[in-house]
Amino acid sequence: MTESIYPMLDVEAALDIVLAQIVLPDPERIPLAAARNRILAETVYATSPLPPFPASVKDGYAVVAADGPGEFPIIGEVTAGRVADFVVKPGTVAYITTGAPLPAGADAVVMVEETAMVASPAHGQQASAPTVHIRARVTAGADVRPIGYDVAVGQEVLPAGARLGPAEVGLLATVGVAQVAVYPAPRVAILSSGDELVEAGAPLGPGQIHDSNRPTLAAAVAALGGVVVDLGIAGDAQASLAAAVARGLEEADILLTSGGVSMGNLDLIKPLLDSIGVVHFGRLRMKPGKPCTFATVARKGRRRLVFGLPGNPVSSLVTFYLLGAPALRKLAGWENPRLTRVQVCLGEPLRLDPYRPEYHRATVRWEASLHEGRGALLADSTGNQASSRLLSMRSANALLELPQREGVLPAGAIVTALLIGEIL
Amino acid sequence: MTESIYPMLDVEAALDIVLAQIVLPDPERIPLAAARNRILAETVYATSPLPPFPASVKDGYAVVAADGPGEFPIIGEVTAGRVADFVVKPGTVAYITTGAPLPAGADAVVMVEETAMVASPAHGQQASAPTVHIRARVTAGADVRPIGYDVAVGQEVLPAGARLGPAEVGLLATVGVAQVAVYPAPRVAILSSGDELVEAGAPLGPGQIHDSNRPTLAAAVAALGGVVVDLGIAGDAQASLAAAVARGLEEADILLTSGGVSMGNLDLIKPLLDSIGVVHFGRLRMKPGKPCTFATVARKGRRRLVFGLPGNPVSSLVTFYLLGAPALRKLAGWENPRLTRVQVCLGEPLRLDPYRPEYHRATVRWEASLHEGRGALLADSTGNQASSRLLSMRSANALLELPQREGVLPAGAIVTALLIGEIL
Repeated sequence: MTESIYPMLDVEAALDIVLAQIVLPDPERIPLAAARNRILAETVYATSPLPPFPASVKDGYAVVAADGPGEFPIIGEVTAGRVADFVVKPGTVAYITTGAPLPAGADAVVMVEETAMVASPAHGQQASAPTVHIRARVTAGADVRPIGYDVAVGQEVLPAGARLGPAEVGLLATVGVAQVAVYPAPRVAILSSGDELVEAGAPLGPGQIHDSNRPTLAAAVAALGGVVVDLGIAGDAQASLAAAVARGLEEADILLTSGGVSMGNLDLIKPLLDSIGVVHFGRLRMKPGKPCTFATVARKGRRRLVFGLPGNPVSSLVTFYLLGAPALRKLAGWENPRLTRVQVCLGEPLRLDPYRPEYHRATVRWEASLHEGRGALLADSTGNQASSRLLSMRSANALLELPQREGVLPAGAIVTALLIGEIL
Repeated sequence: MTESIYPMLDVEAALDIVLAQIVLPDPERIPLAAARNRILAETVYATSPLPPFPASVKDGYAVVAADGPGEFPIIGEVTAGRVADFVVKPGTVAYITTGAPLPAGADAVVMVEETAMVASPAHGQQASAPTVHIRARVTAGADVRPIGYDVAVGQEVLPAGARLGPAEVGLLATVGVAQVAVYPAPRVAILSSGDELVEAGAPLGPGQIHDSNRPTLAAAVAALGGVVVDLGIAGDAQASLAAAVARGLEEADILLTSGGVSMGNLDLIKPLLDSIGVVHFGRLRMKPGKPCTFATVARKGRRRLVFGLPGNPVSSLVTFYLLGAPALRKLAGWENPRLTRVQVCLGEPLRLDPYRPEYHRATVRWEASLHEGRGALLADSTGNQASSRLLSMRSANALLELPQREGVLPAGAIVTALLIGEIL
């Protein structure tokens, strides 16, 4: 047994290689209600104005602004969703509710708080139109949204590449879009490999442990909007591994395997991938997670991405975040698929690794009192960073990018961090 | 028509009222695979150690450390998932792979890179055990994870209240938990009210507009892990509104209505809620979104929460984020359900409102060069903040908390902001 034939790659260089391999799939047209978190594949322009009519901003009275304050007969009312069948002539007003179309003749709205009803004629007297006292003097256009005020005809509502959050979904609904062209949600097949692995619910035999990588990665993929294809656990026999990999390549855009990628006799993934596709790299200069294979394999006219992640739970999740998550996002149509990078202030001293850059797991929160009261992101280490110790990922929402060198970074030092979860 | 009978409440006071009304439901026990993003309802302790046996950290040779370097016969091999049926006596070694149980007799592992195979006897000579040259001197325990190194028996794996992200799901799998007690995902019924509203796919008649609030709120609820119950569009007739509200109260924990909460004749929501439950407040001192009703109604032995949100698209979404989102999170079991508050640096001057505090929509990103190179969150306004203009929510990931006063905040000023989306 000798040194690995795969050169050690820097993580950033590796990520460039991964992203360069990704070709966007054809968009699909789906119902708006199903499009949350998808990336828009076409620019959407408004084909009609919003509002489509001059609309009242308030509950009140539609008036002729030039009439000014005074007592006026109420000649009718118009509510949202109705259109007035009368004209507001000078010297008259009409009751109007928020969102209702301004009746013809009127050019402004006086809100109800600036008005007072005038007492009706005593009972028995001849009925006449009710009368209102308009107290405010308004100018033409007051409390009226003109046609196209919110969205003009032809206006760009959302650009291609926009991510459809709640407001973006609402904007599309606003302009009447019920079906929308978006990029498909990437399908991600997940396989654990190792004779020692059993499902979480099953009892452990001698030498066995529970498989945690598959449920962990499945949750991470789902959080990113991927569709999980569960390939189960493959033993360390070449045939069962090859069959599971073949199924993953058929059914998914991305295949994640974990385990079987270091240097022992049972490292079957690299040779397998080498025989059916192109292995782009096999080792990363990083801690945790040095052994990490990336390959592409052609299937059904599409280039599938395969990540052979390390078997250690922390290493597999960290390498997934660093390489797999940006790949998934790019395949989903994200224009900037990389993890968000911020600067954080260390809450405690951290010892550096002289041999490899380390992605140190931390919980980052906003601390308002830091930096002369301007506030800063404060990073607390999750503790013992052993790559087998998944507890070091508990509550972690950031990977601190610690430089490769001797020594200790003091508390208060500023380091960059990649966000892998919400700041809470 | 007169002034509203409901006093103007500060948003923070309103939120306190809302959160105080929430009673946590009974937990449910569900499969781990379905528990992502749920909140754990019980503290989980490890019932067995991880690893459950002394495990090799490397591919290499199980040795007796006291033997030191030299040439040794390989008496067997042990791979992950297998248990050796032999003992490593002093003067012998066994091949071992990462994660495999250390054979009896051995007390350390020498990684394969520190070894070299010794040439086999020439063909035809008598077969003997293969021999390996161990180059490194190691101490007892080297490259071995002792029993319980990652997780000790009885150790707290996750506390009650933990949110189940990918790592937390993995931790539960690690300790063999296949079913987990979590709080149910809140069910949120969503109703739009207004005679002027039609579905996004339908053509507009005179005086009509497309309903955007329901799809917007549905996406926001789904993003927070809520289960959406779509109540459709109710017209402005009391009977249809009452029927929809009754259905929402039957089927959901939280009911969101939008529209019909300001002061006109057609404001039917408040009287309806007042007749069937308790209206806790009806107006908020804020911009956008002044009219906002919160009520509780008892149904099926549970206290249902009802938010009568404003009809303007921006107002309804902003008030949902300020009050509904924390309510949903608390009901889902979050210990700190409030939106994350950070300080941001204004990218441009912003005019203040002298009458109401404003929640100004902004896109916040990390800008590494700010604040002497320590970096800061930079906030760019989304532009025209009209409450009807949903474009002002496009790409917004923060609500800037602008104080109520005269004047302009200059570019570079620090203000607090509530995060409503990821920092990208």
